[in-house]
Amino acid sequence: MSEPIEFYFDFSSPYSYLASELIDDLATKYGRKVKWRPMLLGATFAKTGGAPLTSIPLKGDYSKRDFARSACYYGLPFRLPSSFPKATQQAGRAYYWLHDRDCEQARAFAHAVFRAYFCDDRDIADVGVVLDIAASLGSDRDEMTAALNDPAIKERLKNETEAAIAKGIFGAPYIIVDGEPFWGADRLPQIEKWLASGGF
Amino acid sequence: MSEPIEFYFDFSSPYSYLASELIDDLATKYGRKVKWRPMLLGATFAKTGGAPLTSIPLKGDYSKRDFARSACYYGLPFRLPSSFPKATQQAGRAYYWLHDRDCEQARAFAHAVFRAYFCDDRDIADVGVVLDIAASLGSDRDEMTAALNDPAIKERLKNETEAAIAKGIFGAPYIIVDGEPFWGADRLPQIEKWLASGGF
Repeated sequence: MSEPIEFYFDFSSPYSYLASELIDDLATKYGRKVKWRPMLLGATFAKTGGAPLTSIPLKGDYSKRDFARSACYYGLPFRLPSSFPKATQQAGRAYYWLHDRDCEQARAFAHAVFRAYFCDDRDIADVGVVLDIAASLGSDRDEMTAALNDPAIKERLKNETEAAIAKGIFGAPYIIVDGEPFWGADRLPQIEKWLASGGF
Repeated sequence: MSEPIEFYFDFSSPYSYLASELIDDLATKYGRKVKWRPMLLGATFAKTGGAPLTSIPLKGDYSKRDFARSACYYGLPFRLPSSFPKATQQAGRAYYWLHDRDCEQARAFAHAVFRAYFCDDRDIADVGVVLDIAASLGSDRDEMTAALNDPAIKERLKNETEAAIAKGIFGAPYIIVDGEPFWGADRLPQIEKWLASGGF
């Protein structure tokens, strides 16, 4: 049995959203599972000197155009959020709390957070929005409110992010297949070739 | 008659090399021509805070792996040069000088420079190597030596680079089709979709 594909992402990353809509089907096609791992992309910028794409001169304007065009290329709905990027600590913590209870519910939550931000322009940095999304999927609102205030879950997201950086991860989405790293939704064709051939 | 596709590149950019091997065939498939435009990528970094990929922590190691894997994905030969990146002023100036005399010879020269660097690890920053490559394609060595010392050709490459930056170009390869900008060899599938559909 092969190891699961590792899918590292940040909820505020448009290319992570695109990959999130495609990666499970791609994996299933080749009999593989995917391990979803939200992280805080901003923490990697301290290591690489990176910055949110839209804040970079010249590249910023291009990237907004490329987000929408890339979504269209994949046939996915997309609307540039009115505020970008967003802090994703609350969404990331909620994900891991859900994940430790119900892996499937956590995945449904992750999809819902991405779509709330990149299709419906909802403020996913707002803990109320995060709780609403989780509640709409059957999570207990009071229980999650308490969990998000627990230092343990804050530590968990911090540790996951540090572990990702320790693995060399500097961007999102970042997908690892059989130890081979692929950065960006635009590497999905290379991932497919890898999965089909067991390497290059 | 459609306008030619504009192909901006730097001779020291691995992804530009990959695109250089693919762009003309892709254009021909859709009855289009390609205008090749070497530029100095380093000059764009001053605008964007960019840096050579391999010099960036974490991203640097990944990018070396991705250069080779991407070449393999496209079935193109590639060897990581022992010294990277290289100054490409001499190659760029030689290109424009040739281009104003014989467009086809200039394109053959551009292919030869890319392959000299990314397949044969030759030092394309060395004017002697640039002259050798041009001479092997029938260019007069003495005439080109004189041309490369002429301030006019230095000004030409500078102006082409400034014009590219004025158009918003911040990276390489950067390909413009019917006014639509595409950054990166990994956007070739999107370019094909654009060419096939006359837009998205």
